[in-house]
Amino acid sequence: LKSDDVISYLEKYHSDSPVLEAAEAMINHTTIEQRYSFMPFSEIMESAGFGSRQNKYEKFAKDSVVNVAINAMANASVTNNDITMVMVISCTGFMMPSLTAYLINELDLPENTTQMPIAQMGCVGGAYAVNRAYEHCLLSKNNNALIICAEIASLCFHKDANKLEDFLADAIFADGIAGCVMRGDDAGEGLVIESTKSIFLKRTEPYIQYKIMDEGFLFSLNKEVMHSIEMITDPVVNYVKSTLGDDKVEFCISHTGGRRILDEVSRCFNIPNKLLEKSRESLRMVGNTSSVSVIDVFNRHFGRVSNGSKGLLMAFGPGFTAELTAGEWKA
Amino acid sequence: LKSDDVISYLEKYHSDSPVLEAAEAMINHTTIEQRYSFMPFSEIMESAGFGSRQNKYEKFAKDSVVNVAINAMANASVTNNDITMVMVISCTGFMMPSLTAYLINELDLPENTTQMPIAQMGCVGGAYAVNRAYEHCLLSKNNNALIICAEIASLCFHKDANKLEDFLADAIFADGIAGCVMRGDDAGEGLVIESTKSIFLKRTEPYIQYKIMDEGFLFSLNKEVMHSIEMITDPVVNYVKSTLGDDKVEFCISHTGGRRILDEVSRCFNIPNKLLEKSRESLRMVGNTSSVSVIDVFNRHFGRVSNGSKGLLMAFGPGFTAELTAGEWKA
Repeated sequence: LKSDDVISYLEKYHSDSPVLEAAEAMINHTTIEQRYSFMPFSEIMESAGFGSRQNKYEKFAKDSVVNVAINAMANASVTNNDITMVMVISCTGFMMPSLTAYLINELDLPENTTQMPIAQMGCVGGAYAVNRAYEHCLLSKNNNALIICAEIASLCFHKDANKLEDFLADAIFADGIAGCVMRGDDAGEGLVIESTKSIFLKRTEPYIQYKIMDEGFLFSLNKEVMHSIEMITDPVVNYVKSTLGDDKVEFCISHTGGRRILDEVSRCFNIPNKLLEKSRESLRMVGNTSSVSVIDVFNRHFGRVSNGSKGLLMAFGPGFTAELTAGEWKA
Repeated sequence: LKSDDVISYLEKYHSDSPVLEAAEAMINHTTIEQRYSFMPFSEIMESAGFGSRQNKYEKFAKDSVVNVAINAMANASVTNNDITMVMVISCTGFMMPSLTAYLINELDLPENTTQMPIAQMGCVGGAYAVNRAYEHCLLSKNNNALIICAEIASLCFHKDANKLEDFLADAIFADGIAGCVMRGDDAGEGLVIESTKSIFLKRTEPYIQYKIMDEGFLFSLNKEVMHSIEMITDPVVNYVKSTLGDDKVEFCISHTGGRRILDEVSRCFNIPNKLLEKSRESLRMVGNTSSVSVIDVFNRHFGRVSNGSKGLLMAFGPGFTAELTAGEWKA
């Protein structure tokens, strides 16, 4: 799915929209060069009804989740019997039993594996999972958490959603799936977590929320969300000072959000643009994959951070909520 | 909502069903005398479409969740500033931001409160929340988890769902909301947890699952679910032996499920029927309230268990999953 395709979709389905020109300009400014989608736009647009969309969600999610999990376990040198918690983070579909149950069956995980299916944290979900996995690993060095983020955001595109804010959502969100394993013994390459922080911005529920329609979920973004990063500057900067000290951020694994969100992260939190290169690369190459994004950016850091560097992992999402992690890279 | 009302609903909407007589006999055997519903049956039946049902979910859930949370905090002698984690367990509706965000705003909880919205664990959700809250409280004696379970199961009743298994779901599930607080310092009356256990029964996803329809979620119960309790006998009995010792179960806070599930709990796990009185009372007075059930049964134990008694808390749900907790009652 190229940005050109999004524009041709707009021209095909929304040729009578008064905001078409503004939407096209907006799409051309996202810096997104390509995105993945589990199905062509025409198939999405022809899926009316929550039921048929959720059936597609189940099919595509099940088709892809097992291989991602197997790769994540291999990268961390753990086997199925080592896993003590399985997390599936996914806000774009709903299943009960969830994909955590599916993975326990397909990977033959231990019968006492703790399941943690998280649907309602949205884009902050990847960093949320990292922080909850960290708490799980604090309980025992033998604990290992398998984290899978899977989003089929294209199921949130709708024919009838034709406001400029709807086109903004269509312009940035993309399908994706990524995984990693957190080892309680900190063996292997990766981020050794030293502390975590949750930040909730009160009375900002409309910034990012789902409208629930008969056809399913619709991302609703409020223009105010552009100020959200600025609004959490104090708690973020204070957290960085108290954990890493001044001027000690040597890597930054940030949720992508969009071009302006990354500009704000750099400006407000005083993060050198160079440290956001992998976030900008992820945005350019796969779009905003919601909860998947921060895990994708994390995976792009392997082999590129020197041993002992100090840095951050962070994501933002509905609430408005931010989840931050501070730690040291082990290469 | 009385069982008579369920029967008159069947006669009104499903008078041509070939299984009507069997359904009525089944309803008369549930032992459920009354159930609560946020809206009359006619209003449920007239709500077509996932969107309108979810709007009702949001309205009714928001209307009731704050008072339940305030009462739970008062019962545990904690204030809003003491809460470190807010959990909302609810499988019958979907909101993003979730009710955890709503509660942080309405109760003015600390901005660094950990949110845990769990939707996909179904009926095991109440015991699942207790076990995850316990892990949160292991991290610090100053941690306090607010647990709210809220289900509007009547939104899963559908006009077109007219198989016997659909009527079984209509016959037992009910709306409900309940809450409690787990204190990290174990102060006050209640259950002092000593250990927890998750059990997953492999390859049993069809036992309890949602069918996702354009109108929303539909509980789908497989007859095999009646054997699920028997199938987890070994891990449950071994867990009880290793934590409480033989013949040491002095109280049992069990999910209600249905009459036969409770009969199976007694038979397979060797739990004296006397210890299931509060579960049977809950089933009789409010029906099977899904994730809410075990918290309702827990709350019915206050003032009725002697100090130092050893016992269990347990629930079962889709997966098939069981969550068990062993501990001592502090009166």
